[in-house]
Amino acid sequence: MPNPTAAMLVIGDEILSGRTRDANMYFLANELTKIGIDLKEVRVVSDDAKAIIKAVKALSAAYDEVFTSGGIGPTHDDITADCIAKAFDQHIDVRDDARDLLVAHWNGRGVEITEARLRMARIPDGATLIDNPVSIAPGFSVGNVHVMAGVPSVFEAMVASILPRLTGGKPLLSQSLRIDRGEGEIAGPLRALAGDYPELSMGSYPYQRDGIYGATIVIRGSDGAMIDAAMTRLAELFPA
Amino acid sequence: MPNPTAAMLVIGDEILSGRTRDANMYFLANELTKIGIDLKEVRVVSDDAKAIIKAVKALSAAYDEVFTSGGIGPTHDDITADCIAKAFDQHIDVRDDARDLLVAHWNGRGVEITEARLRMARIPDGATLIDNPVSIAPGFSVGNVHVMAGVPSVFEAMVASILPRLTGGKPLLSQSLRIDRGEGEIAGPLRALAGDYPELSMGSYPYQRDGIYGATIVIRGSDGAMIDAAMTRLAELFPA
Repeated sequence: MPNPTAAMLVIGDEILSGRTRDANMYFLANELTKIGIDLKEVRVVSDDAKAIIKAVKALSAAYDEVFTSGGIGPTHDDITADCIAKAFDQHIDVRDDARDLLVAHWNGRGVEITEARLRMARIPDGATLIDNPVSIAPGFSVGNVHVMAGVPSVFEAMVASILPRLTGGKPLLSQSLRIDRGEGEIAGPLRALAGDYPELSMGSYPYQRDGIYGATIVIRGSDGAMIDAAMTRLAELFPA
Repeated sequence: MPNPTAAMLVIGDEILSGRTRDANMYFLANELTKIGIDLKEVRVVSDDAKAIIKAVKALSAAYDEVFTSGGIGPTHDDITADCIAKAFDQHIDVRDDARDLLVAHWNGRGVEITEARLRMARIPDGATLIDNPVSIAPGFSVGNVHVMAGVPSVFEAMVASILPRLTGGKPLLSQSLRIDRGEGEIAGPLRALAGDYPELSMGSYPYQRDGIYGATIVIRGSDGAMIDAAMTRLAELFPA
């Protein structure tokens, strides 16, 4: 059975303007790889309702799971929750379960309850909350779409909360070998080797170090023994 | 007149598997911001012909300029050039101008000319070459799609080659202010301020430092004087 597929939607002008270098994509890619969910596509869109709604609908229809990051805080530019509600035609308002979590947290810290703060309890009617041990304000899942915060520490905590709920597959395993020869020299034998192992994916990532051209060959797949066999043949093709 | 719009397509299993953290998106976003081309969307897809062709067609139709990174080397997993040719229904083969560049470079360095190496001269018939001063193998443009390498040093050199050809707009300017108060406290006054300046975009990026919750407020737009005025009001709203 093939692994479940996934997409990620990163929401935020700060990524597209170059202010912030995305960290969440890299984190999520690694976590999904470990549990055998194949991340097939990532999209980054700006804080624009039409763009968010269109992307969520497209990705939700095309993949088994969709993970979003960004846009669920209390400020005016946080529009993700309302966009998700629109995309799935659900009613959205401050929801009791989310408000109770936040009010309990704020009461314990002497924080005033304001309308702005309560925006973080706006959750679509049909959503399941995602636990946020870092700053309490929850994420949520609607269908196959999991809506999480953009702040990396909170995003990572929410991913940890949601992953146990999901059905994984065979973890993607990989081994790599650095070959101090140019890709032009490696390409022919590597193509033949890749042809012998259609179940594996072989990637070639060139580098230049101290004036020497080389490439890291990465062999990926779910069958560890098969990767071992292919790596042995690769090492024989290109002795150090 | 609104600024030209752009999208980026990152091609590569190594990003989606979490092996490599993307650097090219961050670089391109900053370069486009400087010259007033608005990066509106980024997609990351795997080394899969169908996925690449579909994404290139969609982005080319939706935005003024499209920049791709990855998949133009000599190895079997480098399929971007052929996918672009298919997407635009163009013939592709080793092209004389690209081959001449490479052969002159290789002759000077005593590198053998092989079929695998010549794959890097496969260029669609209707394409314009993009200069690569780092490793010579060129990128190319077909219509509004600019096809570049994934290796960051080469990608950056190709971006430098292509940018002077493009029509920019008003550079996106920004100023930021760090406010050591929680977003819940900032949100109300900030929303009102944003409402007074519909031409500007105001983003709030929360942080937690030494146990203190705060947010960096970023005000973006093309009118420097207007940003100055808004920043003055922001600083008055939240005195240090």
